[in-house]
Amino acid sequence: MIGFGDRLASTLADRGPLCLGIDPHAFLLADWGLSDDATGVREFALRSVDAAAAVIGIVKPQVAFFERHGAAGYAVLEEVLARARAAGLLVIADVKRGDVGSTVAAYGEAWLTPGGSLEADAMTIVAYQGLSSLDDPVARADANGKGLFVLAATSNPEAAATQTARLGSGEFAGRSVAAGIVSGVEKLNSSAGAVGSVGVVLGATVRLDDYGIDAVQLRKTPILAPGFGEQGARIADLPALFGSATGNVIANVGRSVLRAGASGMRDELISLAHEARQAGAR
Amino acid sequence: MIGFGDRLASTLADRGPLCLGIDPHAFLLADWGLSDDATGVREFALRSVDAAAAVIGIVKPQVAFFERHGAAGYAVLEEVLARARAAGLLVIADVKRGDVGSTVAAYGEAWLTPGGSLEADAMTIVAYQGLSSLDDPVARADANGKGLFVLAATSNPEAAATQTARLGSGEFAGRSVAAGIVSGVEKLNSSAGAVGSVGVVLGATVRLDDYGIDAVQLRKTPILAPGFGEQGARIADLPALFGSATGNVIANVGRSVLRAGASGMRDELISLAHEARQAGAR
Repeated sequence: MIGFGDRLASTLADRGPLCLGIDPHAFLLADWGLSDDATGVREFALRSVDAAAAVIGIVKPQVAFFERHGAAGYAVLEEVLARARAAGLLVIADVKRGDVGSTVAAYGEAWLTPGGSLEADAMTIVAYQGLSSLDDPVARADANGKGLFVLAATSNPEAAATQTARLGSGEFAGRSVAAGIVSGVEKLNSSAGAVGSVGVVLGATVRLDDYGIDAVQLRKTPILAPGFGEQGARIADLPALFGSATGNVIANVGRSVLRAGASGMRDELISLAHEARQAGAR
Repeated sequence: MIGFGDRLASTLADRGPLCLGIDPHAFLLADWGLSDDATGVREFALRSVDAAAAVIGIVKPQVAFFERHGAAGYAVLEEVLARARAAGLLVIADVKRGDVGSTVAAYGEAWLTPGGSLEADAMTIVAYQGLSSLDDPVARADANGKGLFVLAATSNPEAAATQTARLGSGEFAGRSVAAGIVSGVEKLNSSAGAVGSVGVVLGATVRLDDYGIDAVQLRKTPILAPGFGEQGARIADLPALFGSATGNVIANVGRSVLRAGASGMRDELISLAHEARQAGAR
């Protein structure tokens, strides 16, 4: 069994840091001339998969925009996940699930089971109920060669108060909520090879200093970084943002690429991939 | 348009505080002699809906156990939600969704749109990305007569460190993360009538003092309280736990009832409803 961290490391080395967020917003479906239903979402997502597979190595379908169309949207999602994985893309299901341990276990089973209908390579997950509430999906990810990305410091400004709140108890007392998650995750990866299977989400637009997080301290923890493009961060700034941890960073781009439409997005991705190489991110 | 808070208040007055968590865990499916697939989940959930409709007023399907079966599980969930609402039950979709504003809007649309295939009366939601990231679903709930329950102090012990962390910025600086959410939600409900449409989740097993939360300060905010039965809290203790706020409390029972099986759960619910009346919760 090849671990998720190893698979991620080869993808980053071979295909660069870019990840395409597959976000079929209603306004984008309209821009693309597609219907705002499961059929339109299917077309949007499959074209996005094809464009991504031609240029980059990772996609991140935002499950909210499939769930918006109910069971029909989920049927489309199953097809999209399968198509993306068959095309050799690493697929991160952006679901941000979280719950008590016995329930979050069911979410892990849904997204991280080989052969399952919603099988992805990794999923995003939330630790509001404590990092150790996620023990079951962490064990499942390790056992199945799958990955997790735990939200730590997210890219939306209204998140800062909660994520900088100071822990008063537990192993990471005195640190911020986000820094506690980052340290806890790095610890989960301590016995991994070069790169572990549990990552963190660190927005590229946040000042990590304000959270007491120093990305260069992360040796084995992959970083999923949203915030590029319309949210303000630039791909060229990757090394400035993440320093020596840059090699483990997945840079997510969404709207700025998706707005280029089915025909234009491939060129947009090529241009961003060039920008990443120029910056020495790869 | 009758607001969710008013609908909830009449349900609590007419049918008492009990809510049945519909949690088709794999081990319960086995106990019930059902197959661990979408067909088994359907049978489990529909029998639970029937038992609940005969005795109590509220159900809370745990969506993780439907998602575990992919699109087929979601098709079953659509049927279960429709059946429960047609039976006059208030339905809280336990989904614990959360994300940046433009994405969480899609989740609100999925669960809180009248006529939508996943229509529920309310959904659970997570504010790890900030309470104001939830503005869109809050507005949607108000506009559609729907409700939200924001996780504050949850019943699992490993959540305490995060939820008691102290806010250093924002409107509720100096308070715990959970207390900030509770105060923020009460503020959202300030212009409501007797009961607002945004509630909080407060575990019946947590010592609210440790979070700096005083439930009796909540005038208009409904409380969804898990933790009864196997997790240790007793229905008879409702008034002791929530004092003058008890009238707005939804007491969730799950495993302890579900273990009684399809034939025994109705009697179990009748006995718990009796316990609630004896305690003067209603």
